[in-house]
Amino acid sequence: MPLNPNASIEITAFRWVPEFAQGVVRDLRARWALEEAGLNYRVRLLGQQRPPEYLSEQPFDQVPCFSDGVVRIFETGAIVQYIGEKSEALLPRDPQGRYRAIQWTYAALNSVEPAILNLLLIDVFFAGEEWAKLRRPGAEDFTRLKLKRVSDWLGDKQWLEGDRFTIGDLVMVTTLRFLRHTDLVASLPNLDAFVKGAEARPAFKQALADQLATFTANQPQPQPQGAAA
Amino acid sequence: MPLNPNASIEITAFRWVPEFAQGVVRDLRARWALEEAGLNYRVRLLGQQRPPEYLSEQPFDQVPCFSDGVVRIFETGAIVQYIGEKSEALLPRDPQGRYRAIQWTYAALNSVEPAILNLLLIDVFFAGEEWAKLRRPGAEDFTRLKLKRVSDWLGDKQWLEGDRFTIGDLVMVTTLRFLRHTDLVASLPNLDAFVKGAEARPAFKQALADQLATFTANQPQPQPQGAAA
Repeated sequence: MPLNPNASIEITAFRWVPEFAQGVVRDLRARWALEEAGLNYRVRLLGQQRPPEYLSEQPFDQVPCFSDGVVRIFETGAIVQYIGEKSEALLPRDPQGRYRAIQWTYAALNSVEPAILNLLLIDVFFAGEEWAKLRRPGAEDFTRLKLKRVSDWLGDKQWLEGDRFTIGDLVMVTTLRFLRHTDLVASLPNLDAFVKGAEARPAFKQALADQLATFTANQPQPQPQGAAA
Repeated sequence: MPLNPNASIEITAFRWVPEFAQGVVRDLRARWALEEAGLNYRVRLLGQQRPPEYLSEQPFDQVPCFSDGVVRIFETGAIVQYIGEKSEALLPRDPQGRYRAIQWTYAALNSVEPAILNLLLIDVFFAGEEWAKLRRPGAEDFTRLKLKRVSDWLGDKQWLEGDRFTIGDLVMVTTLRFLRHTDLVASLPNLDAFVKGAEARPAFKQALADQLATFTANQPQPQPQGAAA
């Protein structure tokens, strides 16, 4: 049970987020990696309005940040890789295995995620806008192409580089989960099995449960006049 | 002079690309890092139509791939980091310095580049489309916000983490250069100086010259009837 208020590892996370973001906020990547590695951690919770000085920790005003008394870093790719360095269960030690895993971490974040987040933004934030309606078919096609590239690579392998789960799989799966409001991943059976196989891992389930438990505990109370908090 | 046909390091690059892409194709990142590290390399050139089997090397059909007899990898973030492991000039050896550099590499590719490439696509590929006209102001605002975040962080430092150039600066600068068709970087004097300071490095100049020389040498000949090749 890695969540531990006395742990030397600290990550930042949000106290509460709207429902569409619950279960996909990026601290999930750090929590999941920490669970896989069996490392205790504590969480520093932030409100939706971060204090201005948070920018000196995270210049893009996002979560999570990570510190352990040795390093203080942001960006989930770097955080997950750093955790991987501490656990051969996440990051192989031979140069080729190690860099194939790192390569897939970058691939998820740079070759796949931008297309997916673009579609998510169109569907969630800009759904009513004219440009979003006009752009959506092309944005979906581009996302489908990216998913097909990953699916074609994956073939009948269990994980991206074969039978061994790595940080590359962890970051790719959390990236693909941004599409959970669509059937795009489900339309590719091997990719769907890849995501579901990862979600069945005890470490993922614990990480997800811990993120969601925080949101449940900090659910805003309805206002007497019905005004949103 | 790291370009060497007998080198054990090989990268892939395009034989020729249209002018808007010349000088920003991503093999520039690998070439620049190799020049900074003083490592010899050779280039395997590809046409705009890659053979289908290239997908087994690079599932997203992009350049560059990298191999050195030890690893075979793609994704510029991973390639530049791997080169950095071989050269303390690019990647500090202490844990905090090392992971701050890696963090900025991920930040450039995941927190900054998607906004920039979205704007570039609107301006270059989709300029005539109605959705692109409607979306452009918002896409520019979002890019400006990202640039401001980097500029605010940079302050009066020479490089992102102080007075030492790292892979994080290298990848951030090549990311910001995708905006060279705009004045967005120039509008932030410290960010402009950061990019220009990096472009003045001999290793950058050599890498850029080598990429451009290939395109010049392989410039398509005008067709007799004026049909594009």
